[in-house]
Amino acid sequence: MATSMSHRFLDACRRRPVDSTPIWLMRQAGRYLPEYRAVRARVSFLELCKTPDLAAEVTLQPVDILGVDAAILFSDILVVCEAMGMKLILEDEGPQFPTPLRTQADVDRLHIADPERELGYVMEAIRRTLKGLGGRVPLIGFCGGPWTLAAYMIEGKTSRSFERAKAALFSDERLAHELLGKIADTLVAYLNAQLAAGAHALQIFDSWAGALGPEDYAKFGAPYIARVIAGLERDARDPQPVIVFGVETGELLAQLAATGADVVGVDWRVPLDEARGRVGPGVALQGNLDPATLFLPLAEQEIRVARVLELADRAGPGHIFNLGHGVIVGTPVENAKALVRQVHAHTPPR
Amino acid sequence: MATSMSHRFLDACRRRPVDSTPIWLMRQAGRYLPEYRAVRARVSFLELCKTPDLAAEVTLQPVDILGVDAAILFSDILVVCEAMGMKLILEDEGPQFPTPLRTQADVDRLHIADPERELGYVMEAIRRTLKGLGGRVPLIGFCGGPWTLAAYMIEGKTSRSFERAKAALFSDERLAHELLGKIADTLVAYLNAQLAAGAHALQIFDSWAGALGPEDYAKFGAPYIARVIAGLERDARDPQPVIVFGVETGELLAQLAATGADVVGVDWRVPLDEARGRVGPGVALQGNLDPATLFLPLAEQEIRVARVLELADRAGPGHIFNLGHGVIVGTPVENAKALVRQVHAHTPPR
Repeated sequence: MATSMSHRFLDACRRRPVDSTPIWLMRQAGRYLPEYRAVRARVSFLELCKTPDLAAEVTLQPVDILGVDAAILFSDILVVCEAMGMKLILEDEGPQFPTPLRTQADVDRLHIADPERELGYVMEAIRRTLKGLGGRVPLIGFCGGPWTLAAYMIEGKTSRSFERAKAALFSDERLAHELLGKIADTLVAYLNAQLAAGAHALQIFDSWAGALGPEDYAKFGAPYIARVIAGLERDARDPQPVIVFGVETGELLAQLAATGADVVGVDWRVPLDEARGRVGPGVALQGNLDPATLFLPLAEQEIRVARVLELADRAGPGHIFNLGHGVIVGTPVENAKALVRQVHAHTPPR
Repeated sequence: MATSMSHRFLDACRRRPVDSTPIWLMRQAGRYLPEYRAVRARVSFLELCKTPDLAAEVTLQPVDILGVDAAILFSDILVVCEAMGMKLILEDEGPQFPTPLRTQADVDRLHIADPERELGYVMEAIRRTLKGLGGRVPLIGFCGGPWTLAAYMIEGKTSRSFERAKAALFSDERLAHELLGKIADTLVAYLNAQLAAGAHALQIFDSWAGALGPEDYAKFGAPYIARVIAGLERDARDPQPVIVFGVETGELLAQLAATGADVVGVDWRVPLDEARGRVGPGVALQGNLDPATLFLPLAEQEIRVARVLELADRAGPGHIFNLGHGVIVGTPVENAKALVRQVHAHTPPR
C-alpha cells in the first residue's frame, strides 16, 4: 500500500491524523449492487463464498464502484461453524443449521477447525483480493463473535428472542465454556490465518451482542472476544487493527472497548459523542449513520451525514465513517456514492 | 376494587408504598397458555379481538392462572389503524396492511376514528372484563405509539430496518406531521373511551421506538406520545396511571419519562438502577427480566429474578415487575407461575 489514500483507514483506526475521514460500509458488497447480483445470478451464496475468484471479484466491486477506503472480504460468519463440523445451509432467506446443537455430545463432537485445511478458500480469496487491490486500499478480514456463533449453532437459525441459546448457556456454564471456548480457539486460528494471508485489519461481528443484558454479556460475550484478540499474532511494529461491532450495544460499549479492540463500532442508536463517554479515550469509533438514511433525497442525506461527522469531531481523534448496520437491500447506489463523496470532503480536526 | 391486593399495581405506578412488588407480564394472555390456545382453535386472532366475550375470557386467564396483579385487555395495537380506514390482516405470521400508505392522498384519506362507533368491541370487552374481574385486580387498557403505528401503516408489515417509513417521514415533515397527528388524535379519543369504559391504567406500546436514533425520536416519537397523554381525560382526584414502553430504548428513556407518563417500561438491556439515572426520580419503572429467563430451571430463574428485584430496590420507590418484552411463545406456564410467586415474596424498602 503505497499511496496515502490507502492508509487513511488504518491511520484512523490507530487514532492518527488523517487527510479526510475514511469510510467503508458494512455489507458494501451485496445485493444492492447490480454487479453483485450479476455474479449471484450464476452461483449460490455459499458457492460464492467458496469460489476464491468470485469472492475476490465481489469484494473489489465497492472499491471500484463507490471508492471506499477499505475492502472487506466477502464471506459469511457462519462458514467457521461448518468447518467445526456443522451442516450449514446458506440461502437468501437466512442461514440455517438443519441439525442445531442440542446436547453435550453435540458440543463434544465439534472440533477446532484447521483454517488452512478447512477454510482454505477464505485465505485464497484474501490472496486473490490483495492482488486485485494492488495496494489501493487495505483489506479487512473478519469473523463472527463467539456468542453470536454459539447462538446461531444452538438456535439453528436466526431468532427473535434466543431462548434456546440463552437457556442452554445460562443453565450450564460448563457447556457454555466448552462451546464458547472451542469457538474462540477456532477463531484465533482462523483470524491468524487471515493475517498470514495478508489481511490488514480484522472486524469481529458480534452481531447479536445486544440480545444479552450487560451482566450476561460480561460472562458469555466480551470475555470470549477478549480471548480471541489476545490470541492474535499481529505485526509487532504496526499491529493490524481489530474492530469489534454489534447492534443494540448501547449498554455494552465499555465492555467492547475493554476487549483489547482498537476500534469499537457503534450502531445509530448512540450518538458518537455519547459513545465516546462510554468507551473512553483509548479506542477509535466506527459508525454510525442510520442505514435507512440512504433512502432519503441526497440533500436530506447530506444534512444527516454532516451531523454524524459533527458528533464524531466532538468525540475526538479516531473516526472511521460507516453505517450503524449493514447496507439495506434496495439502497440506491447513487446514495452510497454520494455518501462516500461527502465523507471524503470532511477533514477532522487534529 | 375493594381489596388491598387489587391496588398494589396502581400504588406502585404512583410510587406509593406497597406490601409486595406487583407483577404482570406483557403478552400474559397468549399462545403459551393452553387455555388461550383452546379459544384460538375456534376463532382467528382478529375475530378474537372483535368478540368481546372471548376477548374478556382470554384477558382473565392469566389473572386466574398466574395470579398477576393486573389484567391487560386482549387486543392488538393495529385495530386502531383499521378503524382509521386501512384494510388489516391479522394472522399468527404477523399482521399485514395489504395496501400500505404510499402517497399524500393515502394519508389524506385516513380519518380520525370514532372509538365508540368504530372500535366499540374494545370498549365492550373492557366492560365485560371488569365484570369478570369483580374488582380483583385493575385492568390496563392500551394502544400503540404513534410512530410505531405510522411505521406499520407505511411498511405494510413488520420490517427489519423501516427504510420506507423513515424515508417517508424524514423527507416530508408536513406529511409526517399530518399522519402522526391524525394517529395521535385518534389515540386520544380511543384511550379516553377506554377510560370511560372503566380501564384503571393505560399502557402505550411504542414497540419500535428503538428503531429511531435519539434525534429522530425527539422529532417523530416522543412529542406525539406527549400529545396523546396531554389529551387524556383522567380522574382528577386519582388519575389513572399511564405507562410508556418500547424496546431498545436505552438512549430514549429520558425522552419517554418526559412525555408525561407515570411509568416508563424498560427492556432487559438496561439495569433498573441505571435506568433510574436516565429517567430521573419522577416516574415509576416497569420491568425488566429477560423473557428468555422463563426457559431456565426454576432455581436459576430465581437467582435472576432476585437480581432484578435488587436493582429495582436500588432504583428507589415505584417498581412494577414485568418482563423486558412480551412472554415468548413456548414459555413453560410453570415458570410463569413461579415468577409471580417469587416476586410476591418480595417487599420493597419504603
